[in-house]
Amino acid sequence: MEYFEDYVPGDTHEFGTIKVTEAEIIEFAARYDPQPFHVDPAAAASGPFGGLIASGWHTASLMMRLLVENYLSPVASLGSPGVEELRWSKPVRPGDELRVRVTVLEARPSRSKPDRGLVRSGMEVLNQHGEVVCGVTALNFLLRRP
Amino acid sequence: MEYFEDYVPGDTHEFGTIKVTEAEIIEFAARYDPQPFHVDPAAAASGPFGGLIASGWHTASLMMRLLVENYLSPVASLGSPGVEELRWSKPVRPGDELRVRVTVLEARPSRSKPDRGLVRSGMEVLNQHGEVVCGVTALNFLLRRP
Repeated sequence: MEYFEDYVPGDTHEFGTIKVTEAEIIEFAARYDPQPFHVDPAAAASGPFGGLIASGWHTASLMMRLLVENYLSPVASLGSPGVEELRWSKPVRPGDELRVRVTVLEARPSRSKPDRGLVRSGMEVLNQHGEVVCGVTALNFLLRRP
Repeated sequence: MEYFEDYVPGDTHEFGTIKVTEAEIIEFAARYDPQPFHVDPAAAASGPFGGLIASGWHTASLMMRLLVENYLSPVASLGSPGVEELRWSKPVRPGDELRVRVTVLEARPSRSKPDRGLVRSGMEVLNQHGEVVCGVTALNFLLRRP
């Protein structure tokens, strides 16, 4: 996975895992998403999820780390204009081990900028039970092979 | 903004600002999105954005902090099933001051769970020049007034 041409529609890539600790859940959420079910184990126990869960933005950020390490080429990645959909389908809890499964959905050369293309990817974050906890359809600009 | 009934379609709320520092951009990205244009000021200067920019997930997380502090009721928030769209329309750079503008798009009582409703919100993150840097259409479950 070096340049745009290496992102082939239909190809699937799977990588991880990454472990989620209670300390990191609380640290992230204290800074960015300080709702009781993300930062306070006692309040979370009697809250809507029956225990502490990770902020959805934390889960997405952990997914991003795995994508940067395994999927987005360090020489060709030009950032992202956004994601088309982002679903948090199951809670992520302390001790969960997450992995990522990505399918290349579409790879389209840019019309206005011939040095690059746009890749659309279907990404799923799975936990150790094989359950999808987060699903994202994402767009990424990547340089074409020189 | 205490319960579901306080989220009135058409209402707009604006709050912030929050300042983004270079140190925080690098700290966040080193952990979750270690691409050169997020973590390495020298490499970023000659990179696609002509300087260091915040990870899009960092921008979304900063937006979330402002939402938790100003929009999502601490007594009624039951989390989110996801976002319908997330756009990163302009880079966020060190020193930027971000604020959030939210419009309630839809508020629908749940059919299956009568104690709650689903709120759809159009959120925009603006910088100090009034430019939209990030746009999100988000879903949130909130408790109805007892």
